Amino acid sequence: MSNDKTLTKRRGFLKASLAVGTGVSGALTSNSASAQSNTFLEIDPWTKTQGATFVNPPYGLPSKYEKEVVRRLPNPAPIFLTASRTPIQNLHGIITPNGLHFERHHAGVPDINPDQHRLVVHGLVDRPMIFSMENIMRFPSESKIYFMECSGNSAAELKRSANNTAQQIHGLISCCEWTGVRVSTLLQECGIKPQATWVLAEGADGAAMTRSIPLSKMLDDAILAYAQNGEMLRAEQGYPLRLFLPSYEGNMSIKWLRRLKLGTEPWQTREETSAYTDLRENGKALQFTFKMEVKSVITQPSGMMKLKSKGFYEISGIAWSGNGKIRRVEVSTDAGKTWQEAMLQEPVMDKSLVRFRYPWVWDGAPAVLMSRAVDTSGDVQPTMEALIKTKSANTFYHNNAIQPWQVAANGEVTNGR
Amino acid sequence: MSNDKTLTKRRGFLKASLAVGTGVSGALTSNSASAQSNTFLEIDPWTKTQGATFVNPPYGLPSKYEKEVVRRLPNPAPIFLTASRTPIQNLHGIITPNGLHFERHHAGVPDINPDQHRLVVHGLVDRPMIFSMENIMRFPSESKIYFMECSGNSAAELKRSANNTAQQIHGLISCCEWTGVRVSTLLQECGIKPQATWVLAEGADGAAMTRSIPLSKMLDDAILAYAQNGEMLRAEQGYPLRLFLPSYEGNMSIKWLRRLKLGTEPWQTREETSAYTDLRENGKALQFTFKMEVKSVITQPSGMMKLKSKGFYEISGIAWSGNGKIRRVEVSTDAGKTWQEAMLQEPVMDKSLVRFRYPWVWDGAPAVLMSRAVDTSGDVQPTMEALIKTKSANTFYHNNAIQPWQVAANGEVTNGR
Repeated sequence: MSNDKTLTKRRGFLKASLAVGTGVSGALTSNSASAQSNTFLEIDPWTKTQGATFVNPPYGLPSKYEKEVVRRLPNPAPIFLTASRTPIQNLHGIITPNGLHFERHHAGVPDINPDQHRLVVHGLVDRPMIFSMENIMRFPSESKIYFMECSGNSAAELKRSANNTAQQIHGLISCCEWTGVRVSTLLQECGIKPQATWVLAEGADGAAMTRSIPLSKMLDDAILAYAQNGEMLRAEQGYPLRLFLPSYEGNMSIKWLRRLKLGTEPWQTREETSAYTDLRENGKALQFTFKMEVKSVITQPSGMMKLKSKGFYEISGIAWSGNGKIRRVEVSTDAGKTWQEAMLQEPVMDKSLVRFRYPWVWDGAPAVLMSRAVDTSGDVQPTMEALIKTKSANTFYHNNAIQPWQVAANGEVTNGR
Repeated sequence: MSNDKTLTKRRGFLKASLAVGTGVSGALTSNSASAQSNTFLEIDPWTKTQGATFVNPPYGLPSKYEKEVVRRLPNPAPIFLTASRTPIQNLHGIITPNGLHFERHHAGVPDINPDQHRLVVHGLVDRPMIFSMENIMRFPSESKIYFMECSGNSAAELKRSANNTAQQIHGLISCCEWTGVRVSTLLQECGIKPQATWVLAEGADGAAMTRSIPLSKMLDDAILAYAQNGEMLRAEQGYPLRLFLPSYEGNMSIKWLRRLKLGTEPWQTREETSAYTDLRENGKALQFTFKMEVKSVITQPSGMMKLKSKGFYEISGIAWSGNGKIRRVEVSTDAGKTWQEAMLQEPVMDKSLVRFRYPWVWDGAPAVLMSRAVDTSGDVQPTMEALIKTKSANTFYHNNAIQPWQVAANGEVTNGR
């Protein structure tokens, strides 16, 4: 049998949760016919015919019955269409399929021929160099599953309450396996001058999207990514080359990367002065907030879903932290009065989404569901009240507050703010 | 800085490989212009225009420049088009995007309405039951990254040598994050009679694809999967429900699952008598070979690629074992005379693909590249000669022999058999 400790642990957990008894059994029995049901004796039409030889050749697409599971704009839609969101309430596990990874672009998605694309490295280096994609792909590579979150994710939630889905409020979060070359490997090739401390990264899109990044981060875990979930980057994710800064706010992972320049201080670009700064009560702005903080959200059940009957439900969601690993996630079904520890799906990886699950028997009474993540640095996901108190009522970016979902007596789930 | 031991280990490794020096530096310098190159001072056309607002809404597709990276039929194509293969030589990391997961079907892909789909559990159970998809998705779930391999993968290689790609020879292997309900959870709900030892699984496709599976496997790690890489199953992967038997030959993970029956012995179905059996020298057939054995293949460089110049290359490939985890992968660049240990990308997961990498400086002379995987059970991937000696010259299924790739002096890479 299995040697996997996780599985063994899980089995104990399942046994305990199923011991709730009437929950699962009741729900299923009430919705199930017996095996003697006449409907089952009828052979389904799809069993009586030859199926499609190849459904979606040569590059496959989802089933036509899943056509509503797509990226969507926020609700209400903004004037400038610059971001689409991942349908997190329809997803399972931690991997976001490439076709559903959230998008954010500052001048649309450029159409870049990879054979013509170049990356220049200059400034405080011993040997300024230009690299083709072929050059870059000959370097030693690595593959890591990392989350990516837009700093503006969940921002709408700070200002107003609405009947929105998890996708509409929190859909600027995705998680893929990213493959590329360590920035440190490339910079080693160019030689770093000792006085260098910051790096400018510039995109080849029409916005020439540009950010300043500490050299220490670039030498720590930054990668020049050319693949996501096995295949080459999608166009909207920076094809053919993007910077990927694990745990940092998404906009800093410059897409369509064309230039890295080493220097001694930040360049004060548009995207780190007029945008992506955090206004405080005194009218001053905190300029740099790089890391996305500890956060979680329940995705099932979540906004605009409906529980059809009392009984057993598995509460499930995603958690992540820019500080590294998630240590635990707690779930409350009584608006935060009491908390219980959820199960984390292993392996729990560094700077990756983690799937958490918690068994719940709904008794039919109104309930408020919440999740609260704690990371290995000890940071605890705050309530909205605590977040505003610590930061500012002006806060827009970096909202990592606890999301409450209200379950009404009729089973309807809405934003519980 | 990072606390990740893997990264620390990797850094030491990179340092050692880069110390090869002329390899990486030489290759890159010869292909790179200096930063003063006039071509770089010209602004690329895509930087001077607004890009597409949303490239592939609402469900994204790969870049148009990657249109050759698709599933393909084997070469030569068979009379019956029943399988398409994953382009493993174009992929990075371990995750196979859903649009590129290999396909194998026995009567085409049925078009199943998930609201009408049912799973019946009967035979030696206390409470025979029928489950809708809604029922099944209310049970506790789990998500795991697992490989899936067709037992016929690499079979062509046993009979002949050809100028084929890694996809054409070995492309019936893929790896996804699968989410679903443990079979044990569902069977617990129905109650297992003590005399039950085998389970019949039947698909709802036109072939009513049917296999017998030991109950012990079903209770160990088998899942009723409804999602892959986050989203619901693709039609060709069994939408809306498939059995998933980690590490077992692919055909046993019955797709479009409609029925599980518990009994006391195998049912001797067509697919375990006339097919999927292993003919021995004496004319008798070994009926059941469930596990896919320890195996690896170098994907970069591989068949039909060309090395353009001498210098540094990262040899990279995938390894897996039905016995559990990969312990190590060794690489030979001299046709198996000497072997060196490759680096494994962490986390190394149970019954999952593992990406291995090995730094190599090509001196321009003909070379034969091989990889050899060893799993935690101690099993070692055999040579073709050893495999035929142990099994039979009649062997067709379960070819896990070492794949040699011949590198010619002009850089062309071909099947080295």
